[in-house]
Amino acid sequence: MTTRQRIHIRTATVADAELIFGLIVELARCERAGHAVKTTPERLRESLFGETATAHALVCELDGKPVGYVVYFFNYSTWLGCNGLYLEDLYVTPEARGQGAGKALLKYLARQAVEKKCGRFEWAVLDWNTPAIEFYRAAGARPMDEWTVYRLDGQALRGFASA
Amino acid sequence: MTTRQRIHIRTATVADAELIFGLIVELARCERAGHAVKTTPERLRESLFGETATAHALVCELDGKPVGYVVYFFNYSTWLGCNGLYLEDLYVTPEARGQGAGKALLKYLARQAVEKKCGRFEWAVLDWNTPAIEFYRAAGARPMDEWTVYRLDGQALRGFASA
Repeated sequence: MTTRQRIHIRTATVADAELIFGLIVELARCERAGHAVKTTPERLRESLFGETATAHALVCELDGKPVGYVVYFFNYSTWLGCNGLYLEDLYVTPEARGQGAGKALLKYLARQAVEKKCGRFEWAVLDWNTPAIEFYRAAGARPMDEWTVYRLDGQALRGFASA
Repeated sequence: MTTRQRIHIRTATVADAELIFGLIVELARCERAGHAVKTTPERLRESLFGETATAHALVCELDGKPVGYVVYFFNYSTWLGCNGLYLEDLYVTPEARGQGAGKALLKYLARQAVEKKCGRFEWAVLDWNTPAIEFYRAAGARPMDEWTVYRLDGQALRGFASA
């Protein structure tokens, strides 16, 4: 039995909300940000699978058991004049690592990006996450380290919007 | 006549493709990346205003004359379980600066983010663009400087997808 056959990637459905919620919490802990998870299975049902959802999710199974997920959406490049594919989250449970699930998810999305004529496939990595950075560099990705994302949220966002 | 009345922000239409193209080229030159603009007015017509478009554009007019634009789209936060608003481009022509057009565009989008229940309003800034960074910090935004975006594109993307 090859790795290819053991790994199965499928589009997530609303029935996966509880599963994905558990994996989001695990990933946030890995990113030393467990406290930052404010979502709930109910919010995921609405925001990822509801009528106004703009993001997409996949579940990765290893030998029939769910072991990982990705959430992604389409961004846009004005320089290229086309959409890009942006990977928001990629997670594989520690027990399932080293068997190709992460690479299979990344490749699945790279193929999606090519099929949908996206000019870019991008994601953000924590600067101290060396194993992740090595994995992404090995895939051919390069850091856009001349750019920093600025964020307005919470009270600062509401204050600026209403000032 | 107040600043508020002189500035008018409107949703861009396909008739603005040529105008927005010109402003995209100007902005890229400001970002020392004029060579990176591969789009054309025709590509913008399709990718920004066609049936499969996922990004949105606004035009800013000062005294009835177009002086700036923004392109934005909705991203997604798994931690919050909701969409965010991501500003891809914001540009105001040099002649029109200092009259509130940039701030008006940023505020317009901040209000959009609040109205659409987005948890975050984000954008990327070049690390050497000090005037932009000061402008964004004054608006209350903070740098997400623990994160770096990785990009897979061109031959590297096609190679990884097909390997």
